[in-house]
Amino acid sequence: MRLGLDIGGTKIDAVALDADDAVLARVRIPTGFGPAAVLGNAQSAAIQAADAAGVGPASFASLGIGIPGLVDATGGLVRHAVNLGVDELDLGPELASRLGLPVFVENDVNAASLGAYHLLGLDTSAAYLNLGTGLAAGFVLGGELWRGARGTAGEIGHIPVDPAGEICACGQRGCLETVASGGWLARKWGSAAPFPVLDVFDRADDGDARAIALRDELVGGAAAAVRILVLTVDVDVVVIGGGLSNLGARLLDRVATALDDQARDSQFLASLELSSRVRLVPLDQPIAAIGAALAGRPAGESIRI
Amino acid sequence: MRLGLDIGGTKIDAVALDADDAVLARVRIPTGFGPAAVLGNAQSAAIQAADAAGVGPASFASLGIGIPGLVDATGGLVRHAVNLGVDELDLGPELASRLGLPVFVENDVNAASLGAYHLLGLDTSAAYLNLGTGLAAGFVLGGELWRGARGTAGEIGHIPVDPAGEICACGQRGCLETVASGGWLARKWGSAAPFPVLDVFDRADDGDARAIALRDELVGGAAAAVRILVLTVDVDVVVIGGGLSNLGARLLDRVATALDDQARDSQFLASLELSSRVRLVPLDQPIAAIGAALAGRPAGESIRI
Repeated sequence: MRLGLDIGGTKIDAVALDADDAVLARVRIPTGFGPAAVLGNAQSAAIQAADAAGVGPASFASLGIGIPGLVDATGGLVRHAVNLGVDELDLGPELASRLGLPVFVENDVNAASLGAYHLLGLDTSAAYLNLGTGLAAGFVLGGELWRGARGTAGEIGHIPVDPAGEICACGQRGCLETVASGGWLARKWGSAAPFPVLDVFDRADDGDARAIALRDELVGGAAAAVRILVLTVDVDVVVIGGGLSNLGARLLDRVATALDDQARDSQFLASLELSSRVRLVPLDQPIAAIGAALAGRPAGESIRI
Repeated sequence: MRLGLDIGGTKIDAVALDADDAVLARVRIPTGFGPAAVLGNAQSAAIQAADAAGVGPASFASLGIGIPGLVDATGGLVRHAVNLGVDELDLGPELASRLGLPVFVENDVNAASLGAYHLLGLDTSAAYLNLGTGLAAGFVLGGELWRGARGTAGEIGHIPVDPAGEICACGQRGCLETVASGGWLARKWGSAAPFPVLDVFDRADDGDARAIALRDELVGGAAAAVRILVLTVDVDVVVIGGGLSNLGARLLDRVATALDDQARDSQFLASLELSSRVRLVPLDQPIAAIGAALAGRPAGESIRI
């Protein structure tokens, strides 16, 4: 049995998995702000999930955590988790000593990558394309997370794709993130709608020309991200997740169509069969928390979900 | 002891490695054109390298081959090696039966990646950036070649980086290859010089404005390739090889400077320390033939060169 936490900007999503990796219990509590609050709430969430599963934390083989920011997966150290008010936090060792079980800490996109890979029953290689406020990716290669040599693999949102594009927050011009992220779409759309991306898609369906242009730019950017992931790493599957994945088929079908349209002018692209490699993340499951729980699993152990 | 062949457009470079992976003998013969010629000459090259090492082919544990085109590394099948006049060739099984030893066939860029990785004594993860007539990359991750799910990893030359760029031979617009390859540079320069890229660098040194612009575009494109490789896969090292690497420090220093210039405007890029990750391939060694020889090595066996 394993515990998993997905520590997000507003809430912590906690799950307890049974010996067959099925979700026994799920708990959500507010994240809080600052290192002390995040640490205390993570501890509470783990204990509450264990309680909800009817056992104490000590009954679990491990606790895995997905958290935004720069994560040193070996040492369990988290840095620059700006949205959580955390500059630096020794999250893994602290929680391990408080809870008395091994703790594994992963970047949130990596945790979600692992969750998506296993929930979709994939067995070759996959990229998880996180389309949310920003744009980033994670990789599962040969069944294992590929974190990169220095833990920063998948930062494809900051690949420049247009020398005449917008200046990105990272200081470069025309980054992929400036055309294919919820944050940039909301800024360009400029409406006060609670879900600006949904608003753009709805208005585009109504025939609004500016909404159609912005929607198509976003879809084209997502297709470009898929193309970059396959041309570089040649992953078998690209799983689209993140906040924008809640658009479901409204997003996925348009991305697949954009990929097919690009392939019509290029036999080379056509040979890569990009549209057939794209999948949507399961929308009804806490994939990042489940992936975090699985992060503690020894390499090579079989996974059944 | 192992044999390795690098089958190029004009010549086959063959090496015999001793038990410590040192080059015992090296032979070069013309490649020929068409499947029968390529197969016969590959067989001859292997036998001549073995002879030059003073033993018969049967004394070698394996023969590894690097060859352009689409390679099925499992089955030893080569397809679409256009420059060799080969549409389809069962190279691995044919040579194995003729020579009586195990034959491993790899894409030429993958073979060179493995050779560069081991000749430079790398031990983390690396990309090999092949700057030649075209632009492509290979990966060694965790000490092993990463070929991709379908054998096409590293095709980064066909990532579009400029919506206003040239139409690439692949049918897309503004591919990285159109700004950072010897073929495109030669076409844009238009001179009849035997080594057009060298001519551009020489004329740029003389102050020719058009040569300076073309040289800087090429260097910027090479820097963009490094950025894509690190942002996506987070390889520890990018080794620049291929025909353009013969420019040596004239190329490497400018690429490093271009990376540092980009990092001045972006704290994010600066944190990736891109310029410190770039190395030049050893210019005095037959890296692709050596890498091909190593391709037959069982995973995990220690390598001493």
